[in-house]
Amino acid sequence: MNYYSTQITNLIDELRRLPGIGSKSAQRLAFHIINMPEEHVHHLAQTLVTAREKIRYCKYCCTLTDSEVCPICASTKRDHSTIMVVEHTQDLAAYEKTGQYHGVYHVLQGTLAPSLGKGPDDIRFKELEERLKNPEVKELILATNSSLDGEATAMYITKKVKPLGIKVTRIASGVPIGGELEYIDEVTLSRALDGRVEL
Amino acid sequence: MNYYSTQITNLIDELRRLPGIGSKSAQRLAFHIINMPEEHVHHLAQTLVTAREKIRYCKYCCTLTDSEVCPICASTKRDHSTIMVVEHTQDLAAYEKTGQYHGVYHVLQGTLAPSLGKGPDDIRFKELEERLKNPEVKELILATNSSLDGEATAMYITKKVKPLGIKVTRIASGVPIGGELEYIDEVTLSRALDGRVEL
Repeated sequence: MNYYSTQITNLIDELRRLPGIGSKSAQRLAFHIINMPEEHVHHLAQTLVTAREKIRYCKYCCTLTDSEVCPICASTKRDHSTIMVVEHTQDLAAYEKTGQYHGVYHVLQGTLAPSLGKGPDDIRFKELEERLKNPEVKELILATNSSLDGEATAMYITKKVKPLGIKVTRIASGVPIGGELEYIDEVTLSRALDGRVEL
Repeated sequence: MNYYSTQITNLIDELRRLPGIGSKSAQRLAFHIINMPEEHVHHLAQTLVTAREKIRYCKYCCTLTDSEVCPICASTKRDHSTIMVVEHTQDLAAYEKTGQYHGVYHVLQGTLAPSLGKGPDDIRFKELEERLKNPEVKELILATNSSLDGEATAMYITKKVKPLGIKVTRIASGVPIGGELEYIDEVTLSRALDGRVEL
């Protein structure tokens, strides 16, 4: 790509490393950015850095947030006796968009993945066990993806949690097999929540 | 989007303003960025700012570059008697990828657009006229897009330049009507160059 100057080439190369950004998109973005007013570029750059620096895990549910306790865990309007277990913060956001769920969450930040050597210590399961010591908790809704790893993780958690006498449910199979929660429409997600079955 | 923390929401909002980035892509990019090592985010942010700050127009061909004279205008291996006129730096890059063109360029940084009130002073035409005073220049190849504005711009330049006794050609109509040079494959672009006709 020596037909662009070094700075443009560097910018295109950096952008191309981002997920879902191909060679053409990277080029288009790069030219958009170098045509933006200089203060807008500074602002964009600062937003990236600030978001990355300020981000941390909620001390209760382990979602990505910028305060010690995330807004959902801090809310007294939420039902703290019901915990929905999801893989990622994006999945939490997907369920929040339905407006149908009023409990709290637990974000595993991944799944068990034996093939990749990822065991219970690689997901936020210890933190979940800690929360379950609170007698207030009545139900655990497992909303991991319906992928192989997501199902295995749900099975593992069920086995560990049922003996504690807590009701464990799994969102209904309205979620298509192999689908990623993040990309499913609100109606399907709501239906899967309504049709959840006890494990 | 109050189910994300402020910093994540800000980041998603900023990313969504970029061209071709929808709501889902912005979310995906944001989570990718906050999961990147902190020094990578600093590097990405710095690359944006540096590219924007260092960028300028080549004093000859007006392409976006980071030095006073772009690498193509500075090269003694290029044929400086042939100038290809394109709308944007991306179009220059598209022709460079064909490897079939050995002349130099002139980047208008836009087109005439009477409907938007954009006249000859809004494109880099004065700079082109200045270059044509050099008796070394033998041919001007018009490679503006085959859109209405691109054709009008080619017509305007032809009218202005032909009286100077310089050969003016237009790339062949191999380029589909309404198409954007930036997105056309190398073979079509090469064919359009070979089939250019004198105006």
